[in-house]
Amino acid sequence: MPEPWARHWTVSNPGWKENSETEFAMALIVQKYGGTSVGSVERIEAVADKIIRFREQGDDIVVVVSAMSGETNRLTALAREMMDQPTPREMDVLLSTGEQVTIALLCMALEKRGFSARSFTGGQVKILTDTSHTKARIREIDGTRIHAQLEQGNVVVVAGFQGVDDQGNITTLGRGGSDTTAVALAAALEADECQIYTDVKGVYTTDPRVVDDARLLTSITFEEMLELASLGAKVLQIRSVEFAGKYKVPLRVLSSFEDGPGTLITLEEESDMEDPAIAGIAFERDEAKLTVAGVPDVPGIAYKVIGPVSEAGIEVDVIVQNAAADGSNDISFTVKRAESDRAHKIITDVAASLKAREVDVDTRICKVSLVGVGMRSHAGIASKMFKALADEGINIQIITTSEIKISVVIEEKYLELAVRALHSAFDLGDPESPARSIED
Amino acid sequence: MPEPWARHWTVSNPGWKENSETEFAMALIVQKYGGTSVGSVERIEAVADKIIRFREQGDDIVVVVSAMSGETNRLTALAREMMDQPTPREMDVLLSTGEQVTIALLCMALEKRGFSARSFTGGQVKILTDTSHTKARIREIDGTRIHAQLEQGNVVVVAGFQGVDDQGNITTLGRGGSDTTAVALAAALEADECQIYTDVKGVYTTDPRVVDDARLLTSITFEEMLELASLGAKVLQIRSVEFAGKYKVPLRVLSSFEDGPGTLITLEEESDMEDPAIAGIAFERDEAKLTVAGVPDVPGIAYKVIGPVSEAGIEVDVIVQNAAADGSNDISFTVKRAESDRAHKIITDVAASLKAREVDVDTRICKVSLVGVGMRSHAGIASKMFKALADEGINIQIITTSEIKISVVIEEKYLELAVRALHSAFDLGDPESPARSIED
Repeated sequence: MPEPWARHWTVSNPGWKENSETEFAMALIVQKYGGTSVGSVERIEAVADKIIRFREQGDDIVVVVSAMSGETNRLTALAREMMDQPTPREMDVLLSTGEQVTIALLCMALEKRGFSARSFTGGQVKILTDTSHTKARIREIDGTRIHAQLEQGNVVVVAGFQGVDDQGNITTLGRGGSDTTAVALAAALEADECQIYTDVKGVYTTDPRVVDDARLLTSITFEEMLELASLGAKVLQIRSVEFAGKYKVPLRVLSSFEDGPGTLITLEEESDMEDPAIAGIAFERDEAKLTVAGVPDVPGIAYKVIGPVSEAGIEVDVIVQNAAADGSNDISFTVKRAESDRAHKIITDVAASLKAREVDVDTRICKVSLVGVGMRSHAGIASKMFKALADEGINIQIITTSEIKISVVIEEKYLELAVRALHSAFDLGDPESPARSIED
Repeated sequence: MPEPWARHWTVSNPGWKENSETEFAMALIVQKYGGTSVGSVERIEAVADKIIRFREQGDDIVVVVSAMSGETNRLTALAREMMDQPTPREMDVLLSTGEQVTIALLCMALEKRGFSARSFTGGQVKILTDTSHTKARIREIDGTRIHAQLEQGNVVVVAGFQGVDDQGNITTLGRGGSDTTAVALAAALEADECQIYTDVKGVYTTDPRVVDDARLLTSITFEEMLELASLGAKVLQIRSVEFAGKYKVPLRVLSSFEDGPGTLITLEEESDMEDPAIAGIAFERDEAKLTVAGVPDVPGIAYKVIGPVSEAGIEVDVIVQNAAADGSNDISFTVKRAESDRAHKIITDVAASLKAREVDVDTRICKVSLVGVGMRSHAGIASKMFKALADEGINIQIITTSEIKISVVIEEKYLELAVRALHSAFDLGDPESPARSIED
């Protein structure tokens, strides 16, 4: 039985060959199922059923799986019981077993249903990485073995998250690396589509837990996805999105548990969108703002303030600098709230050496961002945003802008109110809205 | 700190170079630790401490480990939850993760103690096997990579029980295969000794649970060990003993949990033994005897009776045939008791087609065997055995003999009595006995 919505796909996926009622087009699809999707024998069986529905349409399927949910944590706990800082090389040997268990069980589930399947570890299909254990990067994939298996009619099941370096040492790509494996395989195999199955239905205009009528997007560009992902919509690993964009792999996010077309992430804005101003609204809680006020307005001052914080391994997000008329300067930046104490200490020392007037920390702020490629060509987005916030009495502390996003730092207690106000102001929740093509 | 008993080793191990008080000889030792020995993080740490004591003597160490106890069962249960007859190829992919977890954790334990260590899966050190998934046999091991690691001063930790076929598919050697891995590695690396660490102190003259003064043997020949292993002293996998004998690898069985020299399994009888008549007494409970009485005494009759049983996958142990004066024949054989019903059904059909007089099954029998290479040159062993049993009023139902063993089938209720009587008759429990060199 074909997926009920599979017929629609060719519209949004130019890589697919044309379908007809009698003859199905054959495509090569890479599917990735995360830990929750394969969290039990029962769920792995459900994944097998899903794969089979594609297989029965005639598609060639390469599946990438994560470790069963909980397994990576179990293994990590074993390692930490052994030593505080487990040897990275051995950590990779240990953790890579998690996915290996899943590939075997999924192949069994497929074989039990009469579909021939072959499992492969990262090493077996030669997912060549650098030697950075626990955070390796993929260098090359040799698709020969997988293509040979597909030609023999087998479903190919590959362990995500892992590879080998040129010495044959096992490496892992770090948390969420299975997404990257899937995209890299899709690129290497020149797959027609890379489907990432998760526990959400796709990418929404904003977090549905905050805005009731947040809508599922049928499509979004890689750029927008990158901004949304980095700003908090943690649907996909950002590295996998970068990878997909770089290698032009059509990427689709969909639910393991519910049927539906999900969200297609494409290179180009969809041409039939008349007014694609805003793709969505992202936000970050748990931020802190640090300000060093009254530093001299001289070249290199920003580096003198921010440099020591970055060097301490603290990720700095928004940075703004404002020169006052008197020749002095205020520099503000945001960090994760958990890092704010550490950052504060560093900044206090720096401020003293720079003879700064004062240092301020505000741990009760958050960041809200509008994201959309349409911003490039549409004036008035920023002012519409500021008006919507002003109408609710929300004071903006920092504004930063890029080509496709506008971010504001506001008091944390206004987060939900701000997101809802913006969602409504840009008509994101309205299915009839011309602002965005949305699922109906 | 050197193992306190290590000084004695050179006596029984001609492969070792000569030691002196000031300069320790360097040897290449392959050590194998089973599932119980690595059953928890704590136990893995104890194994690391043991390895380090050898390492500090200057020895090069290659360690082979099993999966942590319980892990193989956990994985098997997952597979059986998925399907009744799990795909053998995928079963191997699944099960091989068990040992992979252990190698990583053991290397961490060594690194934590400041000793550099590198783990390798069967595939990584190219333990090449045939393609018989779940029961593969080792064809070849390329020691290059391991030698290179040893030269760099690393302890090498290899996953037992697993290999790869010539296509790079993961294979496993079947239960207990880690012993075979260790012996095969020792052979390939031309190691000075292969040490199998278990939960017993070594090989005893008989089961200490049956005979209080059963004594630990300092040495035993491969042939004796094979007979003892196959007859019930389940200390070592029989395949690994065969392998060690074939490749002349000095094999030592010792305890993971207690210090001691264990039992050395050698090619030759020890030259200093004056009267090495009997190595030990083995026994099998849970046997059943089947008899087909009154079959024609014609060529091929034994095959007609036994053939169908073997073809049904039932392992047949003792077989005796006795031609009567009237030209008819009785054929008796033993099988595992659990198989006796199945064997009985087969035999009943066969007996009907052969017009046999009757079929009899006795499920209350056991087998007791005397084993010793000294039998070859010492007359009177058999009669001494029969007398010892007769003195206790134990009736012998079947006698079979080979070069180095004599087995009797007796009523099961006499098992302990028979073993004790024989142990005493052959002075096996007496440390002063000239019958055998034993540990004091």
